[in-house]
Amino acid sequence: MAKVLSGAGLRGQVAGKTALSTVGQSGSGLTYRGYDVKDLAAKCQFEEVAYLILKGNLPTQKELNAYKTKLKGLRSLPSALKEVLERIPANAHPMDVLRTGCSMLGNLEIEADFSQQDQVTDRMLACFPSIICYWYRFSHDGLRINVETDDDSIGAHFLHMLHGEKPKELHEQVMHVSLILYAEHEFNASTFAARVCASTLSDLHSCVTGAIGTLRGPLHGGANEAAMEMIEGFTSADHAEKEMMGKLERKEKIMGFGHAIYSESDPRNDIIKGWSEKLAADVGDSVLYSASVRCEEVMKREKGLFCNADFFHASAYNFMKIPTKLFTPIFVMSRLTGWAGHVMEQRADNRIIRPSADYTGEELRPVVAIENR
Amino acid sequence: MAKVLSGAGLRGQVAGKTALSTVGQSGSGLTYRGYDVKDLAAKCQFEEVAYLILKGNLPTQKELNAYKTKLKGLRSLPSALKEVLERIPANAHPMDVLRTGCSMLGNLEIEADFSQQDQVTDRMLACFPSIICYWYRFSHDGLRINVETDDDSIGAHFLHMLHGEKPKELHEQVMHVSLILYAEHEFNASTFAARVCASTLSDLHSCVTGAIGTLRGPLHGGANEAAMEMIEGFTSADHAEKEMMGKLERKEKIMGFGHAIYSESDPRNDIIKGWSEKLAADVGDSVLYSASVRCEEVMKREKGLFCNADFFHASAYNFMKIPTKLFTPIFVMSRLTGWAGHVMEQRADNRIIRPSADYTGEELRPVVAIENR
Repeated sequence: MAKVLSGAGLRGQVAGKTALSTVGQSGSGLTYRGYDVKDLAAKCQFEEVAYLILKGNLPTQKELNAYKTKLKGLRSLPSALKEVLERIPANAHPMDVLRTGCSMLGNLEIEADFSQQDQVTDRMLACFPSIICYWYRFSHDGLRINVETDDDSIGAHFLHMLHGEKPKELHEQVMHVSLILYAEHEFNASTFAARVCASTLSDLHSCVTGAIGTLRGPLHGGANEAAMEMIEGFTSADHAEKEMMGKLERKEKIMGFGHAIYSESDPRNDIIKGWSEKLAADVGDSVLYSASVRCEEVMKREKGLFCNADFFHASAYNFMKIPTKLFTPIFVMSRLTGWAGHVMEQRADNRIIRPSADYTGEELRPVVAIENR
Repeated sequence: MAKVLSGAGLRGQVAGKTALSTVGQSGSGLTYRGYDVKDLAAKCQFEEVAYLILKGNLPTQKELNAYKTKLKGLRSLPSALKEVLERIPANAHPMDVLRTGCSMLGNLEIEADFSQQDQVTDRMLACFPSIICYWYRFSHDGLRINVETDDDSIGAHFLHMLHGEKPKELHEQVMHVSLILYAEHEFNASTFAARVCASTLSDLHSCVTGAIGTLRGPLHGGANEAAMEMIEGFTSADHAEKEMMGKLERKEKIMGFGHAIYSESDPRNDIIKGWSEKLAADVGDSVLYSASVRCEEVMKREKGLFCNADFFHASAYNFMKIPTKLFTPIFVMSRLTGWAGHVMEQRADNRIIRPSADYTGEELRPVVAIENR
C-alpha cells in the first residue's frame, strides 16, 4: 500500500542522498561540499568551484591551471551543431535554443558509457557559452562568430563572444561570483529532473537536456529576467516605491523575492547585491541600483519578504550589458555543474525513481462499441 | 524536518494524483481512465485511446473521424526541422534524434500559453512518426521522403514512410494494438520526469523532450530492442532453450521479463503475444515465434518470471520488418499521449515538485587559500 505523503510536490520528503550541498541548514545558508557559498564566492574562481562540485575537493593551483587549460581547449562547436543553431529563429526562447543545442551535441558526441562522464561534462561546461553566443550573434547580428577565444575563464569567454571584445576585469570577476552563486542547490526541480532521468541509466546529454527544459519554467529559472523587466521601468527610487506599492495593492506577483526553502534570507543576495553596487559605481548609474535597493526596502517593510539570489542579479547583469533574455542561459552555464554532479551521484548508487500515484479517476467500466456511444 | 522514506527511488511513495490510469490494482492489471487495456486493445483504434487519454472519454464515430482528419493534417515538418534532421548522422541513437527533433520543433512552434496545449499535443502526435522516418530514410537511404501521406492512422503513416509503401491491413491492426498497449503507465520514470518539468510551468516541448531522454535509459525503454537482439541469435526453439539455460547459469541479465510493479504477470503480454503468433503465421515464420515461446517457458520454469509487454513486441515488430533500433521511438509515438495527459493534469493542480535530500557529505569547513592547498 502506498504511503500518503503530507504535502504536494514532495515538499519536505527525502527523495535520495547527496554529498553535494546543504540548503537552509543551521549555521550556514548554503554549502557546496561543506564550504559556505559566501566563502567560496569571496575566495574562488568559478572553475575552482566547478572542480570542487565535480571532483569533490578544491584544486591546487597546478590542478586549477590544468583544468582551465583543458576547458579552454573544448570551446569549439562541430559544424553540424552550428548549422542547427543557424536554423533557430531570433524570436526563439534562448532556453529552447540551449536545450536543442545540448540535445544535438548528444547526437554528435555520444556518451558511449559512464566512464566518459567527466569528459562529457567538461565539454558541456566549455561549449555551452559558445552555443548561446553563436546562436545569439548569428540570429540577432547575422554574424558567424569565432567561439574559440583564449579568454582565461568561462565567464570571460561568454562576455567576449557576446560583446565582441575582451571584458574588463571587474566584469570577469562578477561573472565568477555569479556563476559560483548559481552552481548548485540540492534537489531543486531541474536537478531532480536530471536525477530522475539518470535513474533510468540514460546518458548525460539526456539528463542535462531535461534539466534545461525544467529550469525554463517560470516557477524555477527566469525570475531574474522577470525582475529586470520590472526594474527597468523605474525612473528613480521614489518612482520604484510608488510602482511597487501599486503592485502590492493590486496583488500582482513580484518576482525575485522569497524562496521555497529559505525562510529569513537568501545567503546569495548580500553577495550579488554588493557586486551590483560596485558595477553601478563603475558605470555611473544613479537609477537602477538605487531603485533596486528601494524595492528591497519596500518588500521588507510591507510584506516581510527578502530578496532572493535573482533580484540583484538583474541589475548586475544589466550593468554588464547582458541582454535580459540571456539571463537564464547563464544560470544553465553555472548549474550544469550541479546537475552533472547529481547525475554522477545517482549513477553511483542507483535505483530507478518510480513513485506511485493516488488514483482519482473513473471506476472500472466496459468499452462500449463505437456505434453505441 | 524532512521525513525519511522507506525505499530508494520513491518506490511505493505517492508523489501526486492521477485520473489517467491504474497499474497492478486488483481486478484489472492496467486501466486507462477506467477501461481495461485488454478491452481497449480488442475494440479500439489507437486514435480512440489517444482521444480517451487526452480528452477524458472515448469518442463517438463522428468525433473520431474529425480527430483523425485533424491529425492527418498535421504530419508535415517545417523545412528548418528537416534540415536539422539531415545533419544528424546515421549512427546516432534514434532516441537522441527524436529528443532533438522534439526540442527543435519547440523553437519553431512555441507553446505560447497553456491554452495551446491540446494543439501542441496533437501536432506532436501527428508529426513524431514523420521525424523518425524522415531522419531514418535520409541518413540510411539518402532519401528525402514525403511525410504527408494520406494513411488512415498513425501506425499506418509510420509503416508507410518506413517501407515506402502502404502497409497491409494486418500490420496496421497490430500497430493499433501496440500503440494502445504502450500509451500510458501511471508514474513511470519518463512520465514522472515530464511532471517534474511541468511543475515549473515549463512548456510541453520541454516536458516531452525530457521524457524522451528519460525513456531512453536501458532500465526504462529499450527492453524490446534488447530482447530482439537476443532472440534473433536463436535458430530454433531447442537452440533458444539451450542458450537461455546457459545465460541463466552465467547469471546474465535477460531483458523482457518481470516488472517493477506487476508481480504475477504483465496484462499486456497475452495481447501482443497473440498478435505475434498471427504475424508469424502470416509470414510463414517457423523460428522466431516458437523460439520466443520457448524463452517464456524456460523463464517461467527456471525463475518463475513472466514476459512483460516488451518481450513479444520484439518478434511482432520484427515480423513487420521494423528495424530494431526504431522499437523505442515507437514507444515514444504512443507514450506521448500519457506524457501529455500527465502534463495537463499537473498544470491543472500544480505545485512545484521539489523534494529534499539526506545530506551525506562533509561538515562545514573553511576555504583554504589556493596557495596553501
